[in-house]
Amino acid sequence: MKINNALREVAREENISIERLTRRVKNGSVVLAKNSKRNIRPLAIGSDIRTKINANIGFSTKKNLKTELKKAKIAIEYGTDTIMDLSVSNFDKIRRTLIKKINIPLGTVPIYQAFIEKKFDMNLDSILDTIEKNCRDGVDFMTLHCGITKELAENLNERIIPIASRGGCFLSVWMLENTKENPLYTGFNEILEIVKEYDVVISLGDALRPGSVLDASDRFQIQELINLGRLTKIARREKVPVIIEGPGHLPLDQIEMNVLLEKKICDNAPFYVLGPLVTDIAIGYDHITGAIGGAIAGMYGADFLCYVTPAEHLGLPGIEDVKNGVIASKIAAHAADLVKLKDYQKDLALSIARKDLNWSKQFNLGIKGYSQTKYPLVDKNVCTMCGAYCTHKTIREYLKK
Amino acid sequence: MKINNALREVAREENISIERLTRRVKNGSVVLAKNSKRNIRPLAIGSDIRTKINANIGFSTKKNLKTELKKAKIAIEYGTDTIMDLSVSNFDKIRRTLIKKINIPLGTVPIYQAFIEKKFDMNLDSILDTIEKNCRDGVDFMTLHCGITKELAENLNERIIPIASRGGCFLSVWMLENTKENPLYTGFNEILEIVKEYDVVISLGDALRPGSVLDASDRFQIQELINLGRLTKIARREKVPVIIEGPGHLPLDQIEMNVLLEKKICDNAPFYVLGPLVTDIAIGYDHITGAIGGAIAGMYGADFLCYVTPAEHLGLPGIEDVKNGVIASKIAAHAADLVKLKDYQKDLALSIARKDLNWSKQFNLGIKGYSQTKYPLVDKNVCTMCGAYCTHKTIREYLKK
Repeated sequence: MKINNALREVAREENISIERLTRRVKNGSVVLAKNSKRNIRPLAIGSDIRTKINANIGFSTKKNLKTELKKAKIAIEYGTDTIMDLSVSNFDKIRRTLIKKINIPLGTVPIYQAFIEKKFDMNLDSILDTIEKNCRDGVDFMTLHCGITKELAENLNERIIPIASRGGCFLSVWMLENTKENPLYTGFNEILEIVKEYDVVISLGDALRPGSVLDASDRFQIQELINLGRLTKIARREKVPVIIEGPGHLPLDQIEMNVLLEKKICDNAPFYVLGPLVTDIAIGYDHITGAIGGAIAGMYGADFLCYVTPAEHLGLPGIEDVKNGVIASKIAAHAADLVKLKDYQKDLALSIARKDLNWSKQFNLGIKGYSQTKYPLVDKNVCTMCGAYCTHKTIREYLKK
Repeated sequence: MKINNALREVAREENISIERLTRRVKNGSVVLAKNSKRNIRPLAIGSDIRTKINANIGFSTKKNLKTELKKAKIAIEYGTDTIMDLSVSNFDKIRRTLIKKINIPLGTVPIYQAFIEKKFDMNLDSILDTIEKNCRDGVDFMTLHCGITKELAENLNERIIPIASRGGCFLSVWMLENTKENPLYTGFNEILEIVKEYDVVISLGDALRPGSVLDASDRFQIQELINLGRLTKIARREKVPVIIEGPGHLPLDQIEMNVLLEKKICDNAPFYVLGPLVTDIAIGYDHITGAIGGAIAGMYGADFLCYVTPAEHLGLPGIEDVKNGVIASKIAAHAADLVKLKDYQKDLALSIARKDLNWSKQFNLGIKGYSQTKYPLVDKNVCTMCGAYCTHKTIREYLKK
């Protein structure tokens, strides 16, 4: 790996020495997301640096490119580190438009296009073609569900929710219909050859992530993780950077174990978690269940949090949902980073501004998203919560003495 | 303690045997909140039962009884277990109205009234009068900041945010102005005599809860906790039930320790946490930081979560804030209870409904607050998230084979 200016800039921004960053990239515990064809700053994801977040956009049933671009824009405005396009139609158009319009890493799930275009006639060749097209277009990282195998797909009835991953579902029905092994698993070496050329990061997808807290950490999920661990070793031999995708729905007390297990089995590859959601019942509020799980996962070492919006399990997120999903994820990532990086500067500065009743400073330092229209200050010297009985103001006079 | 029908009903509802519940109440690890003068069902708070939540209402600068009653109503509608009135004016009126209008336990903070009415002329007698008035009116539990001492108040300058508790602040300035010890501390035995008569639960307030993650677990907080532990032993000798109030602002990795320490030092008295908030910077979104902290605290044994609304640190919560605060707390408590009580029935039922694409069942089982207007179903057979590519629908046909 060349130490160039871009890498130096990343190290400076992440507050890590260039030597340490280089070592981390070499041993695979940090990946740099940036397609060699794109002209963006590489994004570092992994150990000893800030926890990153991703926002999913893309159309499913409704096709409206403009709305999706707006979602991408608002996600970036509120601080997402990456965007993933999960569209299931009009693939080339939206991917190419996004790559032109956004200046942060873009991820895709090529199996969506590969399967939707060919259905059960899809084969390794057509998949590789789609992967290569994504690479050529400039996609920076891509989810590939290489770890699910036919035996696992055949027995999905054992679970409460057989499968929650869309790409994993496509591959499962393909395997069951054709009684063939997962082409992403059997063709893994050929995939590596392609992505390598473009410095694309492989995000090894968790097709078998639990879709219910009752399926959490079951044999399907863990067997797939073991498979991903084996593939991680192969990818590293070929110097292809990988991240590992993780759950999904997990009760609070299984989060630590899941992070430690991933780090162990996948040789400290960056862990990219979807949520995790700590209960199944919070319909309409899964940005909160996701923030709870994400904060804990991050504290124990998860490196990359996929946002969850309030629309999860219900429908495509709207613009406001995207904003709320990003904010919840940012809070989770920041709370985790207080523990991971021991950098309390921002919280210190905000606490001092709070004590000093310096509102404009508080608003500048606080997480983006606060609405002064919603909570107008009636009196700049106090807030309406305690009013005249403001503790900060009341105690101040006595401590001066 | 008499085993009566009310207690039997509580045991049945909490899914705990009457013998075990009685033992827990006897050893103080469960308290029953209900003033002997009130005609409501007692609320059990403590070990081995469902985690409870509280919603604070009450006016500060604006006086509008109707609005506060509306807040209480909406908090109850969305599932709060208790209401605390934190008003700082018109005390008797709002307290008496609330006791008449709501049928769940009501908590108050008598020191607000005692200090605001007499300021620095307040003394033990006037405080005891206020406490007795609250008891007579039917208040079920009351926050009393008995653990803060003069020495601690004198040195608050050592902290980033000297004090975050309003009641603690009143007592601090009173002690500093009068150079006297905390009357709630010196007069603890007399307080016990009064509350005992009415079966009122004392919630030993944490005047020194950290107001910044940088003050978390500092000597002020822990010294006060030690004092509260001593007072707990005294209260138990007098058979007065106590709960212990806790932080406040805590980084993620200090939550477990704080819960375990409280349980140890206060002989397993129920722990009532405010949040905890896992970062200081989430202005306008502290219902989320509170839900993160509350879920973790609950998992480790906190028994009672005080909600935090999006308006925290900004102003009095509006009706919508109260609703959002209650929902976030309910999610945290439920996620914690999955771990504590190992009862996954609700999540199981919802997951099955989700897999079956049974929307009405999902909405019935899900947490209250979901808006079908906000997320209308376009097609009842799938949701708009994956549309035609619904995983549940797609895999179903193959697993039937």
